[in-house]
Amino acid sequence: MAVQTVATTTDSADTVDLGPASALACRECGERFALGPIFACEACFGPLEVAYDLPSGDPEDLRKRIESGPENIWRYAPLLPVPADVASKPNLNPGFTKLVQADNLARELGVTGGLWVKDDSGNPTHSFKDRVVAQAIEAARAFGFTTLSCSSTGNLAGAVGAAAARAGFRSCVFIPHDLEQGKVVMAAVYGGELVGIEGNYDDVNRFCSELIGDPAGEGWGFVNVNLRPYYAEGSKTLAYEICEQLGWRLPDQIVIPIASGSQLTKIDKGLQELVKLGLVEDRPYKIFGAQAEGCSPVSAAFKAGHDVVRPQKPDTIAKSLAIGNPADGPYVLDICRRTGGAVEDVTDEEIVDAIKLLARTEGIFTETAGGTTLGVARKLIEAGVIDPSLTTVVVNTGDGLKTLDAVAPTTGMSAVIRPNLDSFREAGLA
Amino acid sequence: MAVQTVATTTDSADTVDLGPASALACRECGERFALGPIFACEACFGPLEVAYDLPSGDPEDLRKRIESGPENIWRYAPLLPVPADVASKPNLNPGFTKLVQADNLARELGVTGGLWVKDDSGNPTHSFKDRVVAQAIEAARAFGFTTLSCSSTGNLAGAVGAAAARAGFRSCVFIPHDLEQGKVVMAAVYGGELVGIEGNYDDVNRFCSELIGDPAGEGWGFVNVNLRPYYAEGSKTLAYEICEQLGWRLPDQIVIPIASGSQLTKIDKGLQELVKLGLVEDRPYKIFGAQAEGCSPVSAAFKAGHDVVRPQKPDTIAKSLAIGNPADGPYVLDICRRTGGAVEDVTDEEIVDAIKLLARTEGIFTETAGGTTLGVARKLIEAGVIDPSLTTVVVNTGDGLKTLDAVAPTTGMSAVIRPNLDSFREAGLA
Repeated sequence: MAVQTVATTTDSADTVDLGPASALACRECGERFALGPIFACEACFGPLEVAYDLPSGDPEDLRKRIESGPENIWRYAPLLPVPADVASKPNLNPGFTKLVQADNLARELGVTGGLWVKDDSGNPTHSFKDRVVAQAIEAARAFGFTTLSCSSTGNLAGAVGAAAARAGFRSCVFIPHDLEQGKVVMAAVYGGELVGIEGNYDDVNRFCSELIGDPAGEGWGFVNVNLRPYYAEGSKTLAYEICEQLGWRLPDQIVIPIASGSQLTKIDKGLQELVKLGLVEDRPYKIFGAQAEGCSPVSAAFKAGHDVVRPQKPDTIAKSLAIGNPADGPYVLDICRRTGGAVEDVTDEEIVDAIKLLARTEGIFTETAGGTTLGVARKLIEAGVIDPSLTTVVVNTGDGLKTLDAVAPTTGMSAVIRPNLDSFREAGLA
Repeated sequence: MAVQTVATTTDSADTVDLGPASALACRECGERFALGPIFACEACFGPLEVAYDLPSGDPEDLRKRIESGPENIWRYAPLLPVPADVASKPNLNPGFTKLVQADNLARELGVTGGLWVKDDSGNPTHSFKDRVVAQAIEAARAFGFTTLSCSSTGNLAGAVGAAAARAGFRSCVFIPHDLEQGKVVMAAVYGGELVGIEGNYDDVNRFCSELIGDPAGEGWGFVNVNLRPYYAEGSKTLAYEICEQLGWRLPDQIVIPIASGSQLTKIDKGLQELVKLGLVEDRPYKIFGAQAEGCSPVSAAFKAGHDVVRPQKPDTIAKSLAIGNPADGPYVLDICRRTGGAVEDVTDEEIVDAIKLLARTEGIFTETAGGTTLGVARKLIEAGVIDPSLTTVVVNTGDGLKTLDAVAPTTGMSAVIRPNLDSFREAGLA
């Protein structure tokens, strides 16, 4: 791995303009590196993340600047690793999705303090992945990459294909060769290269790591590998938007799905930044992590009081969360414990129930990841772990149209009748 | 039909608050009726549409009022048949979708005057139907209906189910019993009644008309029948948004799909209103209508120079446009001729090509209706009918995730390889 941590382009912090991003810093040992397409610390192999020179000055000025910005993530450009003129470049402009006040759902769950669903199904390719890919695209431009790539089992492939098409990059995305046809179509329609790998997702990942180290991969930005530090920052925008949409205040409780755990850690980072910048009042908040029982390594560690996460072999319908060895697991444990939150998991049946609950109460059709998050929220409310008298936000990261199979077996017509009133009455529908 | 045109509730214009809506007026003879759940003129059986007392006063004040409103269709509440406090009621808040400046697409098509795609796939259930259903919901509230209904073959069923769930209505939606499972799931997941009718879409429609006249249908609002005059007004918001997003100016040319033709006529109505209100400068614009060759009754009439539209039996992959006897066909002909536009049609193959073109150039995955609209735009540009030196807007009404079958046969992986670099090189991908 060591060879891959060294920047291979001639770019340095002097020539790279990624706005307020000042360096990459190791999350383990704190060592700093110039901005570049690297992702692991040369000193200790810890993961790198973006460090910033955040804006100083009157918070009120910054707030006004944000509020007068575009209705997408680029309103937060002063807090992201992107150049100041990012909004003028061709990209999909995701974000500023609806924060839905879920009063019907709150009534069903007995929540009295206010319940909101942050609905990222409204993004261009209908998942939160558009947020992170948008950051990777800007990093790729800065580093002079001309091809965008990733390993994926679904959502990410489409998000990369779409964003690359609009931004003028070549794309070459790697997937397991036996993916369902629907997912292949969603990823391939944008016209980039879509390459099936004979093997499982781990094989795909391993191949991508090989490719990064090979001349064949030169000029390639892998959004979730060598561009990962930038890519991951996109999830901070969920925190910014939630607080702004709540009227510039922190929620008391927030429930977030866990795949690699990156999203949860970045939402926490975003909340902390808003406090530091004086954009929201500093008050306690609790972060809760959601997993499927069939892939619950972080939940298991949380319950057992462990600091390390023991890998699992995933077996759940929540495929977009099925990462058995989540890279950010330990950080998630730390955040949930530090804030007084928790990590919990639900069964596949509870996931499907929660998908239907959200659709029936709020007209939002979420995918299995969203069902997992709401299912965990419900379980923790019932257990008294989430306080129903406090403000609660549930993050919905995706769209039910992409996981129809999960609900199909138990969702169908109420009745089939002949086209006349007698038949209608017989069916008891009048 | 006559019996159904009379309001059966006790509501009258005195008690019904639908904001600036003052009456229903017959589009044929001009006869006016009090606001109520009626849709055909008692005098001549012509279709009814909403008449308004539109705001008077300084256009600049109205423009500011709109701009400070919510980021959805309710910013235009002063121009819609809804009460002034509509934004505070539970609904899906569709609209204010992206107007995407499509520079890549423009280059491919040789458009130099500016090309935009109005992308309604960003609506809550990913089609423009959310706009029209949102109006029907407010009319249903005003008239005291407690059940929402419609006949549908897809998009509308989901839009009604979702909106009813959130707004607290019972819903009962009728579909042909042999609809594809995916579409059934999308419509049924919101928990309302979904009833399959043994028969085709015409049988479903006929049954709904029977039900409206029967005691069993009392208290039922059929969004596209007895609430149709209100429902249809929702499409005006596409015109408002396009002009506002262009900086409060009319586009020179706009390309719109034709199913019943209602959307096209209401976009024209919306543009006219903006001119009357002084919100945009009065200058000529041209409206172009798009159909699939396999269901092109309006296009055929346009080309033949006829004023009447001869019904066709639909046979096209653009199923959401497959209305063989479009109710607003004659009005569409009138508008396209009056503005100097045209109506054109494209083959199923051209529809698929256009879907891929839009995905490849702008990262927008549209359904077959959007492919039809862009396909027609391309054909008319190539024919010199649409002027490439003028501002052009193409309306994308829906989402490709709902019509995967259309592109699946010709969209797939570029290659399948073994997980190693040799195999990658052999495939010629490096």
